[in-house]
Amino acid sequence: MEREKYVAPMLTDGFLQELRSILPADAILTSEEDRLRYGHDETEDLSFPPQVAVRPRTTKEVAQVVQLCSRHAIPITPIGARTGLSGGALSVRGGVGLTLDRMDAIVEIDERNLQVTVEPGVITQVLQEAVAAKGLYYAPDPSSRGSCSIGGNLAENAGGPRAVKYGVTRDFVLNLEVVLPSGEVIWTGANTLKNSTGYDLTRLMVGSEGTLGIITKAVLRLVPMPKETRLMLVPFRDAQKACEAVSAVFRAGITPSALEFMERDAIDWTLRFVEGVNLTIAADTAAHLLIEVDGNHADVLMRECETILGVMEQFDCQEVLFAESTSEKDALWMMRRRVGEAVKSNSVYKEEDTVVPRYHLPDLLAKVKEVGARYGFKSVCYGHAGDGNLHVNIIKGDMPDKAWQNELPKAIREIFAYTVSLGGTLSGEHGIGLVQRPYMDIAFNTVQLDLMRGIKQLFDPKGIMNPGKVLP
Amino acid sequence: MEREKYVAPMLTDGFLQELRSILPADAILTSEEDRLRYGHDETEDLSFPPQVAVRPRTTKEVAQVVQLCSRHAIPITPIGARTGLSGGALSVRGGVGLTLDRMDAIVEIDERNLQVTVEPGVITQVLQEAVAAKGLYYAPDPSSRGSCSIGGNLAENAGGPRAVKYGVTRDFVLNLEVVLPSGEVIWTGANTLKNSTGYDLTRLMVGSEGTLGIITKAVLRLVPMPKETRLMLVPFRDAQKACEAVSAVFRAGITPSALEFMERDAIDWTLRFVEGVNLTIAADTAAHLLIEVDGNHADVLMRECETILGVMEQFDCQEVLFAESTSEKDALWMMRRRVGEAVKSNSVYKEEDTVVPRYHLPDLLAKVKEVGARYGFKSVCYGHAGDGNLHVNIIKGDMPDKAWQNELPKAIREIFAYTVSLGGTLSGEHGIGLVQRPYMDIAFNTVQLDLMRGIKQLFDPKGIMNPGKVLP
Repeated sequence: MEREKYVAPMLTDGFLQELRSILPADAILTSEEDRLRYGHDETEDLSFPPQVAVRPRTTKEVAQVVQLCSRHAIPITPIGARTGLSGGALSVRGGVGLTLDRMDAIVEIDERNLQVTVEPGVITQVLQEAVAAKGLYYAPDPSSRGSCSIGGNLAENAGGPRAVKYGVTRDFVLNLEVVLPSGEVIWTGANTLKNSTGYDLTRLMVGSEGTLGIITKAVLRLVPMPKETRLMLVPFRDAQKACEAVSAVFRAGITPSALEFMERDAIDWTLRFVEGVNLTIAADTAAHLLIEVDGNHADVLMRECETILGVMEQFDCQEVLFAESTSEKDALWMMRRRVGEAVKSNSVYKEEDTVVPRYHLPDLLAKVKEVGARYGFKSVCYGHAGDGNLHVNIIKGDMPDKAWQNELPKAIREIFAYTVSLGGTLSGEHGIGLVQRPYMDIAFNTVQLDLMRGIKQLFDPKGIMNPGKVLP
Repeated sequence: MEREKYVAPMLTDGFLQELRSILPADAILTSEEDRLRYGHDETEDLSFPPQVAVRPRTTKEVAQVVQLCSRHAIPITPIGARTGLSGGALSVRGGVGLTLDRMDAIVEIDERNLQVTVEPGVITQVLQEAVAAKGLYYAPDPSSRGSCSIGGNLAENAGGPRAVKYGVTRDFVLNLEVVLPSGEVIWTGANTLKNSTGYDLTRLMVGSEGTLGIITKAVLRLVPMPKETRLMLVPFRDAQKACEAVSAVFRAGITPSALEFMERDAIDWTLRFVEGVNLTIAADTAAHLLIEVDGNHADVLMRECETILGVMEQFDCQEVLFAESTSEKDALWMMRRRVGEAVKSNSVYKEEDTVVPRYHLPDLLAKVKEVGARYGFKSVCYGHAGDGNLHVNIIKGDMPDKAWQNELPKAIREIFAYTVSLGGTLSGEHGIGLVQRPYMDIAFNTVQLDLMRGIKQLFDPKGIMNPGKVLP
C-alpha cells in the first residue's frame, strides 16, 4: 500500500489542554504502544497510528471532542473493534483516533416493540446473546461477530452468512444518533419499521464508514428467534458446479438462512489452523457449499433439506454431511468463520470483497482464476455465495515483491472491471475504506463520485471526519 | 390547503419549440382537459395543473426534457399514476408535468438471479402478476396496487399490508437509473443483494418524492412466491384491545404476512361502498384485525393460525372468521383495500399516515380520539397495525369551514407531536409531499432539515425538480 503524502497536524498544547478538560486522563492515550494498538485493524499488515487516541464514554464527550477537532481542523478517525478488512479505522492522516470501545452498553431491549437500543461499542455476539435470552434474534453476523462491534458493522454495512435470508446490517437499523463533524448531535429518523418522512439520513449514514459522522447510538430491529436450524456440508468435484448449484436452490423456492461457498484450499488451510474440527475430505473434492435452513418446525426443515439435496444432486455433488448435533454444527460454523484468519496466517495476502448477481458467481470465479494464471498468483475464494458475495484472497506466495507492488493492482483492476460488467460491484460487506479507494472509478463515473463528494462536503465541510477514506 | 404564492414561469416560444424538437406532438399536452388530468392525484380534492404535460417514452427523452427545463429554469414535476396521498405529483409551481405513464415496460424478468428490471410506469399489480407467472413474488403491495405505478412507489417508499413481513419498496430495490436535475443520467448502485461501495445513493433516491431526480429504470429484488396463505378476520368489542393484541402476535414468535387494523366505521362504510362482500358484524364490534400468514406448508400455517387464535383470545376477541376459499379471501382483501376510497366518498376528509413503534398503537389511537373530541371532529382509523402504521382519516362531517381551515391544523400538530413523542413520525408510507410539509418541523429540527436542504441543493442547485415539496 503506497502511503499518501500528508503533513501530520500540529497538536498544540492548547488543543491537548482542552482535550484534558473534556476527558479524564485515562481516556487520553499518547504512548507509542497505545497509539500502535489503535493504529491497525485486520487489513493486511497496515499500521497508521493516531497521534492521540481518545476513549470517550458518552455522546456528550464525543460531541465535545469533535467540536474541539473541528475548531482546530484536526483529523478525527472513528475506531470500532478494529476487525475491519478495508482499513476504515486507520488514522491515515494522524490526528485523533476516537475509539468507541468504552461506549458498549445495551441501553434497552424493548421486547414489546422488538427493538434494541445500543451504544456502538457493543460486540455483535454479545448483543445477539443478550436478545437471544429473550427469544429474539439480531441476524447480521459477520464472521468476526465474536470480536467486531455494532458501530463498525453500521459503518461498513456489514453482512455475514445470515444476510442471504435476513438482510445486512442496513436492513436492521431503524434510527441512529450521530455526532456530526460540526459536533452537533442528531437522530437520523424514527424508531419505526416504516418511514417516508424526508430523505433517508439513516441509510445514508449506514455504510458511510465514519466519513459523515460518528454513530453514538443505534435503534435496531429484532425478529423472533427461529427455533431450529439444519446444517449440511456439500462437497463438489467441480467448483464451478458448486457455484451453479447456488442459484438453483432459490429457484427451487427455498431461501436458506446461509449458503456459503468454500474452495478446497480454504477448508484445508482452516482444518490445519483451527483445533477441534475433524473432517475427512475426499481427494478429488474441489469445493464445498455449507447450507443452513432455519425455522420453527423440524418437519418443514427436513422437507427443505430434501429439496436442497435434490438440487445438489443435479449438480453432481459428492456425499453430503448433515450436522447431527449442536457441536457438529458449531464445528462446521467455526471452520467457516475462521477461514479468513487461516488464509491470513498462511501468507501475505490481499482480500477483495467482490459481489455479483448470484447466478454470475461461476463466471466471476472463473475470471479470478484466469487472471491469477496470467499474473502468476494463487487465490483462495470463499464467501456468501447465496448473496453472490465472493471473498477473493489473493496469496502472495512466491510472487516477487515488485510484481506484488506494481502488477497486482492491474490484476485487481481487471477482476473489478469484470465484476462491474456482470452488474456487480467492489464491495459487498467490507466497505471501501482505504484499500479499495483507488478502484472506485471502476464502479462509479465522475457524476456519481461528484454527488458522493458533495454529500461528504455537506456533512463535513472541513474534511476532518475520517479523511482519506472511501472517495478517491 | 392554502396555496403558496408563486409566479408561474413564462414558457417562451423558444422553449416550446425546443420541446417539440425533443418529443413528438402527441407527447406534448397543453389542452385544459389534459392539464387538469395531470394536475391532480388522490390527495383530498387538490388541483395543481402543469402548464404543459409531457409524456416521454425513453430515458433519453426524459433527460432531454430535463436539460431543457434546467437551461430555462422551468419547474418540472415527475408524475406517476396519480394515486398519491400527499400531493407529491402536483405541479404546485406550474411548469412542466412529466408523466412516466408511457414508460411502462417490464424490461427483463431475470429468473436466474431473482431480479426484475422495470420502467417506472409499470402498474404494481401488473408487475406482481408477471413475476407470479414465473413463481416469483414482488411483495410491496400498496392498497392502490391495481392503479399505482412502481415509479410512484419508489418515490414515496410505498408500503402496503405485506410490508410487515417482507419490507417496504425500499427493501426490494437494488439499483436505479435516474435522470438528475442537470439532465445527466446515472445508475445509483449495482444489481447486487449486498453493497458496501460508497454512499447509498439508491436509498437516498427512494422516498425522495421526485425532488432529487427522475427514476427512469429500477432493478428490483424478487423472492420465491409463497405457496399458501391463510386469512382470518378477528372482531373486537374494544378497539384498544385489538391494538394491544397486535404486538402480542410477534411476541408469540409469529411474523404474519399481513396484520391490518380497521375501526368499525371503516368496515361499515366500506361494506356500503363496495359490492360483493357479505359480512355480518355484531352490534357491539368496535374494530377488526385482518391477519394473514403465508408459507409453503399448509400444516405449518394451520399451526400458526392456532397460535394467533390463542393470542387473540387473550385480548377478548369475538368470533373469528376464517376465509375458507380464494373468493372469500379476495372479498376480505377487497374490503380492506377499498377502505380509503369508501371514507373519501363519504365526506370531505384529511388523511394522516402516522407511524409509531407497534406497541404504542393503542396510545396513538386513544390520542387521536381525545384530540378529535376536543376539536370537534370524527375520525376513522385503519392501517397496517403490524408496522405501527395508522391511517387517521379526519372527517369534516359538519365541522364548520372556518374551524376546518384554522383549527384543524392545530389538532393535526397535536397528533403529530404525540406521534413523535412515542418514537414515531409523520409518514410511514405516503410521503410528505405537499400536504404534510408544514409539519416537518415536528419531526426534525433545523440541523436535520438543513442537512436535507443541503442534499436537495447538491442534487438540484436550480431548484427545478418538484419544487415546493417535502422540505419546508
